[in-house]
Amino acid sequence: MKDKTLLMIPGPIEFTPEVLRAMGTSTVSHVSPGFIECFGQALERLRQVFLCPGGQPFVIAGSGTLAMDIAAANLVEPGDEALVVNTGYFGDRFGTILERYGATVTHVRAPVIGDAPTLEDVEAALKEHRYKLMTITHVDTSTAVCTDVKGLAALGAGLGALVVVDGVCAVAGEEMRQEEWSIDLALTASQKAIGVPPGLALVVAGSRAMEAFRNRKAPVSNYYADWNEWLPIMEGYEARQPRYFGTPPVNLIRALNVSLDQILEEGMEARFARHRRLSEAVKAAIAALGLRQVPVSPDKTATTLTAPYYPPGVDRKMLGYVKEAGVVLAGGLHPDIKTQYFRIGHMGAASASDILATVGAIEKGLSQAGYHFKPGTGLAAAQAVLMA
Amino acid sequence: MKDKTLLMIPGPIEFTPEVLRAMGTSTVSHVSPGFIECFGQALERLRQVFLCPGGQPFVIAGSGTLAMDIAAANLVEPGDEALVVNTGYFGDRFGTILERYGATVTHVRAPVIGDAPTLEDVEAALKEHRYKLMTITHVDTSTAVCTDVKGLAALGAGLGALVVVDGVCAVAGEEMRQEEWSIDLALTASQKAIGVPPGLALVVAGSRAMEAFRNRKAPVSNYYADWNEWLPIMEGYEARQPRYFGTPPVNLIRALNVSLDQILEEGMEARFARHRRLSEAVKAAIAALGLRQVPVSPDKTATTLTAPYYPPGVDRKMLGYVKEAGVVLAGGLHPDIKTQYFRIGHMGAASASDILATVGAIEKGLSQAGYHFKPGTGLAAAQAVLMA
Repeated sequence: MKDKTLLMIPGPIEFTPEVLRAMGTSTVSHVSPGFIECFGQALERLRQVFLCPGGQPFVIAGSGTLAMDIAAANLVEPGDEALVVNTGYFGDRFGTILERYGATVTHVRAPVIGDAPTLEDVEAALKEHRYKLMTITHVDTSTAVCTDVKGLAALGAGLGALVVVDGVCAVAGEEMRQEEWSIDLALTASQKAIGVPPGLALVVAGSRAMEAFRNRKAPVSNYYADWNEWLPIMEGYEARQPRYFGTPPVNLIRALNVSLDQILEEGMEARFARHRRLSEAVKAAIAALGLRQVPVSPDKTATTLTAPYYPPGVDRKMLGYVKEAGVVLAGGLHPDIKTQYFRIGHMGAASASDILATVGAIEKGLSQAGYHFKPGTGLAAAQAVLMA
Repeated sequence: MKDKTLLMIPGPIEFTPEVLRAMGTSTVSHVSPGFIECFGQALERLRQVFLCPGGQPFVIAGSGTLAMDIAAANLVEPGDEALVVNTGYFGDRFGTILERYGATVTHVRAPVIGDAPTLEDVEAALKEHRYKLMTITHVDTSTAVCTDVKGLAALGAGLGALVVVDGVCAVAGEEMRQEEWSIDLALTASQKAIGVPPGLALVVAGSRAMEAFRNRKAPVSNYYADWNEWLPIMEGYEARQPRYFGTPPVNLIRALNVSLDQILEEGMEARFARHRRLSEAVKAAIAALGLRQVPVSPDKTATTLTAPYYPPGVDRKMLGYVKEAGVVLAGGLHPDIKTQYFRIGHMGAASASDILATVGAIEKGLSQAGYHFKPGTGLAAAQAVLMA
């Protein structure tokens, strides 16, 4: 028996052998010709994965939280008004960060956990007031709620707000067309659908975002996040001219370049379709097993993860049984319902077999936790979607 | 012939096979029992490597620049006075960062490049004015100048300033006894003598630094660097209780734990002694070959790197020849003399054979660049030290 568990949490995810190999290869100098070419390629490929041909990519050592911090620190000046389309934990966090840099923040919240604010509510808020910037959490990792980024971004752009998308649990999995959808800045972290171990903050800024940055009057109050320092580095490496600000995380950037190559090899449209199919299979299995989900309706649900409520009589102990069956899932994260649900990540390189293994382990776990159902019910439902 | 060059630059350095293996191992969940134990151990070991039993360690995804930023953002409040003991590029940078967070900065500079300010000059500056904080660059990576951290820290502590040591090119190579020497905060990056690929900012704060942080009146203006967010995470993992702020860089932290174990296995005293011996061997070789060094005297010189001037008639092209001979060295970094010197890193896991390979390649490079000397002169001088 293989001594290997399958990691199906919403990040970090399972990485491909090629990505892991790049991580463990001897480190080269950050100014060696080979690494300069690698970093330059990664920047070019990032633009393609974000579907933002005119964007400025930033690849910086840090977590996804740093990516949010970079967006706020560079775009917000004291006294600015910002609107947060809030779908949970990470909307609250973006509000906190924006306030740190001097913004006055208005939240448009969903009526209940698992829901997203309506386009009408957001439009009304945007019309009430002139906002410099609005933020949208594409997928709230804490609840699996997915927002209508296309519709929301169109509203923001139409009413003159810079549109910032927190795509941490979405980019390279969930459909997102940064330039076509008028998104001024999108960000993510390496360990989600991008498929690289944690440690990289990834940001692509469009021309309006860069212009707002260039026009700012107040200095950027965060040194490490400051685009004045990073822009010459990114432009330099992309022109195959190394420049120094901080030592780039060589191994992570090589792994990023490998993963971006694999992503583009699959193709963005095929990748979006695969994520939709795997997600539908998981959600069909969950429904067939009689479990409800946190998102209130299918159109509010992510394709990168699934967040089922435990059925009556079952609690977090179930995740231990699922792990014994070889699959690692995540517990709840939203403070109000933390103990009532769990989370299944299915993004990046996840395959149909991973989905079946996961559903199989969930069935075992539920059964061991005392929940009654006909074994194979979930698997059959998943397989019907996967074979359709 | 092995298709492998030896990386002898002042970071990133050559990493051990065990560290690289940890980098490339499948990523586990950041809340899995195995990783919680690993992160907890790494925090405990970091304290031992910094020789600061009462310190609070912080391990955060980012570069060494972030470590400097963390120190400044958490300890400085607008209006504070700070003194920078300036030995070059990284002293200038610390000044810039401190100013970003509202400090008024005074620099005590060395009279010439390659020198360090005298203890007398620093004492006079400290007595002239009440400083909240002083910074010392232990080793200036740009020039190989090493400061008398012990003497300087005693002055600062005696005159009531918080002592902050930028140990980026020093910690775990250069002798530094954080607690015994009254250093309130020491910081480094993973890719130097700590021996882990780039991507981790490492900080250990002593009790006076944590007290100054707790007593601050202004909020920390940098969200990602804010100890209010990170302290519960570090305390949590050390108590083997995972807490979430940002996803920790799992692979890098596992590699860190492996490297710290190897460092402590060697023992700090043995490690300091080995670094001194290897450094003396390189410097003896450089002197025997008739090359001058940037540091003005042996007592101002780092043991983690060597910065020789090119001899007359030789320029940067020489580094290309050295690379053809299998060893990667670094060019100059200090803006005023950038083209006139090069840099050799010899820290972390570097061995006597690495030193001989490096000196051999330098001899070949110098010869190919048209410099005349008796082949083997440098090697003989190095070997005399290594065998003493």
